[in-house]
Order: sequence, then C-alpha cells, then structure tokens
Amino acid sequence: MRKEMFNHEINILRETYRRLLRRQAKTNLVKLTRKTHPADLATVFRHFADEEQIEIFTLMNENEHTAEFLSELDDALVNDLLANESLERIAAIIEKAPTNDQSGILNVLDEEKAQLVIELLNTEEQEEIAEIMGYPEDSAGALMNTEVFTLHEEITAGEAIKTLQDQEDAEMVFYLYITDDDDRLVGIISLRDLTTTPSTTTLKDIMIKNVHSIRPETDQEEVARIVAQYNYLAVPVIDPDSHLLGIVTVDDVVDVIREEATEDFLQMAGAGKDREILLKSSWENAKTRLPWLFASWVGGVIAAYLIGVFENMLENIIALAAFIPVILGMGGNIATQSSTIIVRGMATGRVNIGGEIKLILKEMQVGLLLGILYGILLGVFANIIFANAHDYLGIVVGLSICVSMIVAATVGTIIPLILRKLDIDPAVATGPFVTTSIDILGVLFYFLIAGLFLSM
Amino acid sequence: MRKEMFNHEINILRETYRRLLRRQAKTNLVKLTRKTHPADLATVFRHFADEEQIEIFTLMNENEHTAEFLSELDDALVNDLLANESLERIAAIIEKAPTNDQSGILNVLDEEKAQLVIELLNTEEQEEIAEIMGYPEDSAGALMNTEVFTLHEEITAGEAIKTLQDQEDAEMVFYLYITDDDDRLVGIISLRDLTTTPSTTTLKDIMIKNVHSIRPETDQEEVARIVAQYNYLAVPVIDPDSHLLGIVTVDDVVDVIREEATEDFLQMAGAGKDREILLKSSWENAKTRLPWLFASWVGGVIAAYLIGVFENMLENIIALAAFIPVILGMGGNIATQSSTIIVRGMATGRVNIGGEIKLILKEMQVGLLLGILYGILLGVFANIIFANAHDYLGIVVGLSICVSMIVAATVGTIIPLILRKLDIDPAVATGPFVTTSIDILGVLFYFLIAGLFLSM
Repeated sequence: MRKEMFNHEINILRETYRRLLRRQAKTNLVKLTRKTHPADLATVFRHFADEEQIEIFTLMNENEHTAEFLSELDDALVNDLLANESLERIAAIIEKAPTNDQSGILNVLDEEKAQLVIELLNTEEQEEIAEIMGYPEDSAGALMNTEVFTLHEEITAGEAIKTLQDQEDAEMVFYLYITDDDDRLVGIISLRDLTTTPSTTTLKDIMIKNVHSIRPETDQEEVARIVAQYNYLAVPVIDPDSHLLGIVTVDDVVDVIREEATEDFLQMAGAGKDREILLKSSWENAKTRLPWLFASWVGGVIAAYLIGVFENMLENIIALAAFIPVILGMGGNIATQSSTIIVRGMATGRVNIGGEIKLILKEMQVGLLLGILYGILLGVFANIIFANAHDYLGIVVGLSICVSMIVAATVGTIIPLILRKLDIDPAVATGPFVTTSIDILGVLFYFLIAGLFLSM
Repeated sequence: MRKEMFNHEINILRETYRRLLRRQAKTNLVKLTRKTHPADLATVFRHFADEEQIEIFTLMNENEHTAEFLSELDDALVNDLLANESLERIAAIIEKAPTNDQSGILNVLDEEKAQLVIELLNTEEQEEIAEIMGYPEDSAGALMNTEVFTLHEEITAGEAIKTLQDQEDAEMVFYLYITDDDDRLVGIISLRDLTTTPSTTTLKDIMIKNVHSIRPETDQEEVARIVAQYNYLAVPVIDPDSHLLGIVTVDDVVDVIREEATEDFLQMAGAGKDREILLKSSWENAKTRLPWLFASWVGGVIAAYLIGVFENMLENIIALAAFIPVILGMGGNIATQSSTIIVRGMATGRVNIGGEIKLILKEMQVGLLLGILYGILLGVFANIIFANAHDYLGIVVGLSICVSMIVAATVGTIIPLILRKLDIDPAVATGPFVTTSIDILGVLFYFLIAGLFLSM
C-alpha cells in the first residue's frame, strides 16, 4: 500500500510533466523542474521516454539543482542525456557540483569527452577533480567531499563561530575538524559542543582527540561498515601525514549500503553486478548473464555424462530417471539456503574466523534433519506412485535425498568459506559454484546409492 | 585484506578479554569493558563462549554504556544474557537507555518478565515505554527517539542557543524542531543556521516551514526510503494533529537498511527471514527452512509424476534422462537471475508501474538470446557424446534448452510482478515459487518436444 502510494505521487508528477510537454509550456516546465526535488526528478525521469528526457533536460538551468539531479540519476540515463550535449553546457553544470559528484558524472562520460570537459574548467577545479579521479572507483577517496570546514586548535569557540558565519560552501557542517600548525588533523568538535561552550575556551581544550579516520584507498564497503558500526554522521579521510583530505558523509554511505546490497543480490544469483541492468539493452543484459550460466552449463554437461555412464542401471529401472529433478532440486535449494545464510552472515559480521568447523558441522546437522524428513516423505511417495518398479526404489530415492541434502548443505557452507580464505568476495562466485557442484554431486551419489541397492 | 584486518583487531580484543578472564582480573575487566566501544563489545561478544559472555556481563556497570552495548547486541545473545539476570539489574540498565533502545531490549524478554521489569521503572518512563511499545515492531514509532529538542517559534536565536546550553539529554541535536502555541510542529532549523543568525532574529523568520514528516505507523522500509532519497539526517514523526512525537535518526535508518537487505537475501533464498539464524540451534534453523523446501519438494514430486507419464518415451531413448539435470538447471538459473533482477529492481525503484509488459518482453528476448546460444552448444554436445542415440536427440535437447530458458526467464519475471500486484512482498515468495514452477514446466516442455520429434 505504502509503496503504491509513493508510485501514485510519482505518477501524478509524471503526468504533470507530460501535460506541460504536450502544451510545449516551456516556462512552466522550467519552473516545475526547479520546484521538483532533485531526487524526485531523478525518479520521475526513469518513467519518461528518451525524447521526453532530452526535451526536459535541455530546458534545465546549469545550476546546482541540475548538478544534484544528475548525481541522483542512474548512470545509464546520465550517459544518454549528456551524449549529445555541448561540452560547454556539461562543464557549466559540473562546475556547480561538489567534487565527489563531479567525478561521478565525469566517470559516466567516455574518457575523451570527459577530458575535453575538464579542460573547460578553471585550474583549481581541474586539480581537485584530477585528485579525486585518481582514487579507485569504490574507495573512500572517490566518495569523499573535499569541501571541509577546518579550524586551528588554538582559536577560541567565539572566533570559531564567527568564522563559521562567513563560511558558505562547506558540506554538512555538524562536526568541525581541528588542525595544528602543520595542518594535521588533531581533533573534532561537534557543532553542538561548540555552541554550548563559553566563547573564550580554546578549541584545543574541548575537542575530541581520538578521531576515527580512514585513508582515501579504504574500500567503500569498509567505510560503510565503520559508519554503520559507530553511528557516525561523517568520517574524515586523511593522508599518511594526517592531513585532512576530505570527509565521507553518512548520506553517501547510505547510498553505498544500498548499492552494495543490490550488487551482492545480483552476484549471488549469478547475474553480474550491474545495478542498472534493467536499463540496458537485451543484448548487453544477456552478455552480463552469459558467463554465470556457463558454470551451470558445465555442471549440467558433466551430470549428463555421468548419467550416460550409469545408462545400464537406468535401462533396468527406468523409474530412477523420474527422481532426478527432485534430488537435484532439493539439493540445490538447501545449498542455496546454506550459502546465502553464510554469505550474508559474513557481510554482517556474524561468521567469525575460527568458528568455521563448528559452522560446517551445524549445517551438516541441519541437512541431516531435513534430509531424514524429506527422504522419508519422498521414499514413501516413490513406492506409492511407482509401485511396479523395483522393491528398493523407495529406499534408494529416500536415502539419496537425505545424502544429497547433507552434501548440499555442507558444500553450500564450505564454498563461501573457502572463497573468503582465498580473498575472493564470496558473494561474487558462491551462487554459480554451488549449483554446479550440486548438480554433479547429486547425480553421482544418487546413482552410486542406486547401484548399491538395486544390484542386490 | 581489509576485512581480515578488522577481524584481526577483534581477535586481539577477544584475546585480551580471555587473558583477563583466565587471570580473574576483575578490576581490569571492568575497565576494559568501559573502554571498549559498545559496538565493538557487541561484535567481540559473538566470539565468546556462553559462560564467558555471562561472566563479563555480570561485571559490567548498570550505565548508559551497558545499555548501548545491549542495543547493539544480537537479540538472541541479549536473551541469553538477561535470562538469569535479576529484574532489578535489568531495570537499572534499561533506565539508562533511550526510549527506542528500551523497547528493543524489552521486546527480547518474554512478555511476563518484560512486564515485571517495566513495573520497576518510574511512572514517566513507564508511560513512554508503553507508548513506543504500542507501535508495530517495524514502524517509525518503534524506531523513533522521543527525546527531541523543541523550541517555540516566537523566541529569538540568542534565546535558543541559551536554552540549548542547558539541555543535556536530547538525541543528535543538529536540527531544532520549532513548535507553535498549540505545540504543533511548524518548522525546523539546522543548528548551523541557528549559529550563523543574528541573535535577535526570531526563529519563525529563519525556520524552514515545509517539513517532510512521517507518521508513527509508517513502515520502517518507507522511512529508510525517505531518508535515503532526500539525504536527511533525521525525520520528525508527528501525530494527526501535527504534534511532534519523536524523530527517526539516520544511524537507526542505516541499521534498518542493512537489516532489510539481510532479510530480503534470506527470503529470496527461501531461508525464512530470521537475521540471527546463525545463532539459533540446528533444530530451530531446520524448522525455519523446512516450509520453503516443501515448495521445492512438491515441484519435484510433480516432475517425477510427469516423467512417469512419459516413461515409454524414456524406455525407447534412455539418453533423454541424461539431459534432465542440465535443462532444469539452466532454466532454474536463468529464472533466478530474472527474478532477482526484478525483485531488486522493485526494491530500488527501477521497476515502474505500467512498464510491466515491456519488461516481460525484454526478459523473453534475453531468454531467447541465451537459449539459442546454449541450445546450440548443448545440442552439438549431445550428438557427440550420445552418438548412438536417436538422430534427433541433439535437436530435441537444444530446442528444449532454448524453450526452457525462454519460459524460465518469463516465469522468473512474471512471478514477482504478480506478487506485487497481489500486495505480497515479492522477496518473500519469489525464490521458492520460481524454482518449483521451473522444475515442472521444464520437464513438461522437454518431453513434449521429445514426443514431437522422436515419434517422427
């Protein structure tokens, strides 16, 4: 209900834009874009046709609002919008954005075009952008905002407030960053503490000295973990000499957490990690998903080969074939459960190093419990609907389900643990590896068990 | 590397605690708990044995630090710790916590015990807790903090700063909430604007009047969406008469986003939605996962029945059985890709109402592209390794893979869309439904196609 409500508001907004577009009411359109929150405008843009998007964007002013709108918009759409835009206009908009958004927008353009746009900016801007774009894409350096409000440790609270009044641009001034003579970060003061301190106190005496800071190379996931764990509103980024380079603010961290969750989701399903896959063409979409399906294809082919090896057995008891889907299906599903629980447990810090063996044993137990239950259920069922097949069919099928589920739960647990040991992101490779292994192991154990009983 | 690093720090901390425990150095232990950040203490607690946890917790003071620690700790562990604790001690700790954490801790206790603890608190606390606990568990009301700093619209900036200096308890004072004579929320002022305004200005003249507020019944996912979309640090919660009830702060929203992502992950894998499943016993763990596996069991049983129906065909060409795993496996995997992309797209607002048909057609196209590729690959392979089987085996297998992948991509797309239409959370039910349908449809199409060609 609530989500529909939100969609309802977006629909109304879209209809308003469409009506103005049909009437070619340009002045009203400009007014409306200015009144629409950049985040809302980005959402509503997803619902426009390409021509509508371009028509509205052409009308928008080259101001901060437009810059913010672009930084909220999906990269694929930004790319479409800016493809035919003049370098001058792009530069004019970029000039208005904070540094981290600037690099975000420039990263979407192809390299050559980005370079031409950068050359149109003034030298200072160019240097700042060059610095930020020098950091890896998912690092604190790329995420940080360089416009930070710093104060010297020897000034008084009263002077600090005066300086604050003249400062306009700095981002999110809730913490003030305090530096020493060598420009090194030595402490922070919350704006609240500053306000409630007698105006003659020097900052040195009220600042918090033990500041949790990060490096520009720090991965954004780690930044997110720190901000989430300690409930920070911002975390300072420093170089090896403790010079303050910028701050990463909680609003950007919120975006990171959502983006990383989406990437992990897609990766676990073996669907790449492109968050904007829905905006891509069918061809690009297929290309992203193709390699992960190949893992499953290989597993299937090996399973087919194995079944070929056991062809004689199948010829004798054709009913065996009927239970291949359920044995692989149950195995695949319990393995997916296990690996998802483990991968997510690692992401949220609930899987501790050193507790691996205990974890594996526990998952094996879960596999055993569920395997016994579903083994009995399926064994009984097999004997009923294939009453004319081999006497032992029920036992074979039941036992196979049980073994397959224990093996699957174990494999589903072990694979992400091994990947972590090898320093590979478990979210990336777990899904496809797990289903492939289960297809092969499931068939193998099934026919081995069948061979054991049915030759009797 | 970075994560290992973090684990390394936690390991050192754990070893320090263990050493002090072995030496029974109680004074040092108390000191160490006081010095450890509540969030770190909660993390390190996950790595202790039950007795160690209780031993350390018994030593901790009944102060705010301990209250914060409990609110950071997993519910299952809080439950263990408080199970044998005296009501008086629990009440003493709870007294020190902010209201939303109070209700969080009380919710973990069994109802009777929680009631006895509440009775030990003073009347004012009791009323506040009763109010917060009256809201649904995942609502803004349960999440909000009631200690908010409000000011009357007619006072001046100078007076406001003075009042602020006397105020100690209020949470995260970065926005000040402004009320009128009837105590209604009429605007907000950022602390920064307050600091930089001449002290004689009345608040009314500088406050932002168009405040985005929510109701206590608002679902926490919606709260998270609002905070993330508009980059808020806090959002006020009001009643129908615009009276301010509390605020939800961004740090709590960050936790919500992480928790909801974990729940969605587990649900998509058909593993329930218990974030703390790793801390539960094997038995409880199995119980949570059992019902979702049942869906897959039903699918498998129907598939077995269908294969039974086509037994004659299998008897003639036994090689058909060999390709059952790969046809179901590829189908299952592409369906999981599609449904994950759609479910996540809906969660991040990339799937718009009204665009469903286009979306389905696109996924069918992706299924077709990938189906043709893998169909040819598998068809050729089938003809090579089963050279002695039926002439048309390769065509049957190739065509079946292709059809199965188109159908799977379509079903994987349609199921979450239908669930959303029915107002069911698509994350909950998509996974199990999809794999079950694919098992049945895959087998059906495979044998229908086989029947068509092999009778020729």
